[in-house]
Amino acid sequence: MTTNRYPAPELKDLPDDIKAKVLEVQEKAGFVPNVFLALARRPAEWRAFFAYHDALMLKEGGSLTKGDREMIVTATSAANQCLYCVVAHGAILRIYEKKPLVADQVAVNWRKADITPRQTAMLEFAMKVCLRAHEIDDADFAPLHAHGFSDEDIWDIAAITAFFGLSNRMASFSNMQPNPEFYLMGRVPKQK
Amino acid sequence: MTTNRYPAPELKDLPDDIKAKVLEVQEKAGFVPNVFLALARRPAEWRAFFAYHDALMLKEGGSLTKGDREMIVTATSAANQCLYCVVAHGAILRIYEKKPLVADQVAVNWRKADITPRQTAMLEFAMKVCLRAHEIDDADFAPLHAHGFSDEDIWDIAAITAFFGLSNRMASFSNMQPNPEFYLMGRVPKQK
Amino acid sequence: MTTNRYPAPELKDLPDDIKAKVLEVQEKAGFVPNVFLALARRPAEWRAFFAYHDALMLKEGGSLTKGDREMIVTATSAANQCLYCVVAHGAILRIYEKKPLVADQVAVNWRKADITPRQTAMLEFAMKVCLRAHEIDDADFAPLHAHGFSDEDIWDIAAITAFFGLSNRMASFSNMQPNPEFYLMGRVPKQK
Amino acid sequence: MTTNRYPAPELKDLPDDIKAKVLEVQEKAGFVPNVFLALARRPAEWRAFFAYHDALMLKEGGSLTKGDREMIVTATSAANQCLYCVVAHGAILRIYEKKPLVADQVAVNWRKADITPRQTAMLEFAMKVCLRAHEIDDADFAPLHAHGFSDEDIWDIAAITAFFGLSNRMASFSNMQPNPEFYLMGRVPKQK
Amino acid sequence: MTTNRYPAPELKDLPDDIKAKVLEVQEKAGFVPNVFLALARRPAEWRAFFAYHDALMLKEGGSLTKGDREMIVTATSAANQCLYCVVAHGAILRIYEKKPLVADQVAVNWRKADITPRQTAMLEFAMKVCLRAHEIDDADFAPLHAHGFSDEDIWDIAAITAFFGLSNRMASFSNMQPNPEFYLMGRVPKQK
Amino acid sequence: MTTNRYPAPELKDLPDDIKAKVLEVQEKAGFVPNVFLALARRPAEWRAFFAYHDALMLKEGGSLTKGDREMIVTATSAANQCLYCVVAHGAILRIYEKKPLVADQVAVNWRKADITPRQTAMLEFAMKVCLRAHEIDDADFAPLHAHGFSDEDIWDIAAITAFFGLSNRMASFSNMQPNPEFYLMGRVPKQK
Repeated sequence: MTTNRYPAPELKDLPDDIKAKVLEVQEKAGFVPNVFLALARRPAEWRAFFAYHDALMLKEGGSLTKGDREMIVTATSAANQCLYCVVAHGAILRIYEKKPLVADQVAVNWRKADITPRQTAMLEFAMKVCLRAHEIDDADFAPLHAHGFSDEDIWDIAAITAFFGLSNRMASFSNMQPNPEFYLMGRVPKQK
Repeated sequence: MTTNRYPAPELKDLPDDIKAKVLEVQEKAGFVPNVFLALARRPAEWRAFFAYHDALMLKEGGSLTKGDREMIVTATSAANQCLYCVVAHGAILRIYEKKPLVADQVAVNWRKADITPRQTAMLEFAMKVCLRAHEIDDADFAPLHAHGFSDEDIWDIAAITAFFGLSNRMASFSNMQPNPEFYLMGRVPKQK
Repeated sequence: MTTNRYPAPELKDLPDDIKAKVLEVQEKAGFVPNVFLALARRPAEWRAFFAYHDALMLKEGGSLTKGDREMIVTATSAANQCLYCVVAHGAILRIYEKKPLVADQVAVNWRKADITPRQTAMLEFAMKVCLRAHEIDDADFAPLHAHGFSDEDIWDIAAITAFFGLSNRMASFSNMQPNPEFYLMGRVPKQK
Repeated sequence: MTTNRYPAPELKDLPDDIKAKVLEVQEKAGFVPNVFLALARRPAEWRAFFAYHDALMLKEGGSLTKGDREMIVTATSAANQCLYCVVAHGAILRIYEKKPLVADQVAVNWRKADITPRQTAMLEFAMKVCLRAHEIDDADFAPLHAHGFSDEDIWDIAAITAFFGLSNRMASFSNMQPNPEFYLMGRVPKQK
Repeated sequence: MTTNRYPAPELKDLPDDIKAKVLEVQEKAGFVPNVFLALARRPAEWRAFFAYHDALMLKEGGSLTKGDREMIVTATSAANQCLYCVVAHGAILRIYEKKPLVADQVAVNWRKADITPRQTAMLEFAMKVCLRAHEIDDADFAPLHAHGFSDEDIWDIAAITAFFGLSNRMASFSNMQPNPEFYLMGRVPKQK
Repeated sequence: MTTNRYPAPELKDLPDDIKAKVLEVQEKAGFVPNVFLALARRPAEWRAFFAYHDALMLKEGGSLTKGDREMIVTATSAANQCLYCVVAHGAILRIYEKKPLVADQVAVNWRKADITPRQTAMLEFAMKVCLRAHEIDDADFAPLHAHGFSDEDIWDIAAITAFFGLSNRMASFSNMQPNPEFYLMGRVPKQK
């Protein structure tokens, strides 16, 4: 099944603040990622969703790079089998990391990906938050500290994982499809 | 382990909008539920979290009662073994449903709980969103429609489940503890 | 579904020895816990069940307190999602431990409960007996010995877990419901 | 590891009633099955265990044959990976069913075993009691009724499964080894 | 970790029959897929592996297209988290199906992929062979027959799944890495 | 269900090379193991299957004995619940190891079997290849090296496991039944 279960609103019918943000994204990306329209049918949820997203993904400070953040999203979304997030955030991951192969590696089996030991430790923790958060204990923090992650960084890893767990479930349940543009983005030179 | 891993800020140090909301909750509940302070160390995330929460849990319209909403939270948080959410939202569930036994039943085994067939169908769907959202297909919507849930109601069920999946992971990872007051709330007359 | 699948016999129709025990329990607790009547439809099984129960739960000697024993029952019954045992034995756990919050903590996520490190080690072992007894090996005994448990204590932990695994399956299969009295017991002063 | 973790008492040191039963079994079987001595170190538990066992396995009446009962034990003990019970009860199953191949078939994959459709339905239910008793609902009873099982027969199936779940956990935890005699019993003519 | 654990032999050191096949593949694909060299360190296994591969994947006749066959490989290899097979066979899938998006869809969540209902039924069966072959029964064949698959086609589906289950385990265990060329193949026009 | 889903060809209709091999096996074993005829309906697959089988199981050199190899097959086939392979290869295991009890032990719970610590380490690795090959990392190789297994031996362990994973799936899907002769083989003196 490849159609969203819930019809997306048209751009012209959106509240002004949402419309403005959508147009800004379109300007920057060259297209409107489907999640912006799919969630806009519920403006209050839309605003909370993107406020949360931006607080976590556009955050200044801390030791997580933008590539690290997208890598967490890609790995945990793959564990949740979320088509939208793996394809869309895998694309952004490729761009930030400037590594055309890394998203597929992280999505299929992050243990085999061409990433740093620090990133492997980061994903190990993210996957436990994703799949067995109730079992997290002190022993899970030690390897992250050893790689130089602060407690605030660890909060970032957990929060990004938790937020995209929400996003994954919304996308899967509503059958949200990634825009075709995402599939190729970051794979070839000049591709933007 | 029974202490939050991350120190909560003091009320006096919070931004005004957050402080105002916390005081309002304290006024109404008689105490400050720990989640309000625990998340306040990150104001931007706090604002997004509660905006999302309120959009889903205080929503007007639709066929889900407030009791239904808390029942979804209790059942799915139990599946995620989230101590904070099961205890806190189980308390609110007892109050809204005016059934002192229902929260424990739903948390231990929702299939055996003294709830309506409509609520059982609602929880069946919520549990699938919680545990296997990637497997949801058309066949999962039919029984909900048969019980009178609209597509908007189903979105509510899914979104509440997804949002508290986020909340569960944050609470478990950070070792958030429920306030002692919640454990007894709604179990005895006059309580609250 | 909230009715036992199998009708319970009436007190007056029970064999004398069973009737005597039921009356004794009623005298002590103020009500007849449903398990006493539900299993009494099969007198030979009833006698074996309670003989086994008493040999494990009323045993003199060893380092396990009565609170420890009920804690094992509550934690493993929660893993088996047995409504009857979690609610009934959670009540007794609260009373023996004199901790009104401990049963809910142990049932939802024993790793987050306000219990001693010795009790945590005890539950770690009990959960392995409950869920993966076939994988138990020498390495599982070492941490228990380190906490002062003797081999006889460890037998107690395993046997209590195994016996309530039986009890959980009988209660779930037959839809045995906990008496309403259990839900509140041990939560408030004077209660009992 | 192939030695019982807990030393078995010697026959001469057993209480009279237990000694008498052990001698009776030895007379009948030609050897003392290890479970009789392994559990005898705890006389009260021994008595309850075998009283329960006999109530379920030697029961008169009902539509379950002795072969059916041993088949339930073999299938569920295999699911629990209990070496003692699969080997010992598989032997008895071969004898009662007079089918030298049936125990291995049932232990490895009961769905492929040369048994009747009625026995397949019986095992389907037993496996659910063994692995997911908390999910049992009305729909699980219908196919058993269709095969002529009464509600009392279904209780027998569940109780045998539950009891051997206890037995499996005790045997696995304590590393109880089946007597060598069991491995060959019922496989060749004249054997026994 | 991104290096094969076992060093691959050099082309010049290979037996003549293997060298000939490798050169033929290189001629056709423009590069030597790593699996050809990685397995060549064991010539007898290499010959059996590719004989089996060709018998299943290059088979004439039957209703499975080459695209169908690669789709089975991609979906089941993703379930086994095999990086090499998902990337390499996903590439071939894109080419045969002439659908640049289909491989990512099938790998992340085949239930959401833009494929035909016939292909969905095919993958449903393949996934059961991959994950729970021991539970396959008659009921699994009916939907395939309904979509026009013959028993021989069903054997093909099962055999391809089983063979790549072998391949997945060899690739994962030995840390076989896909050639970089595969990642982009079939995604852009003119790509070969 | 106890009949193969796919009819086996008759010996007389087989290609000459296959017929010759079948007759050779019959001469040696006294009967034709069903797998030889069941797969012969597809001669090209048959040839690849047995070439692979022989390369792994009849290999000269390395530290794995023939008993070790059959032990790997028995343990992993039991994990896959493959009736044919557990019964047939369990028989050969008994013969090679000259231990009439070992096959049942390994099949029911290899952790409790009367085998050497070296064999336990070997099976631990084989089971990970069987069930979670994608998680294998360097740490899994260390205990094998400590027991004297070379990297080539480890390849053998992995390849045997992977190959019989294929075999298990083919046998289960097609409902291949073990010959009755296998069940008793190696259990009694003189049995060959």
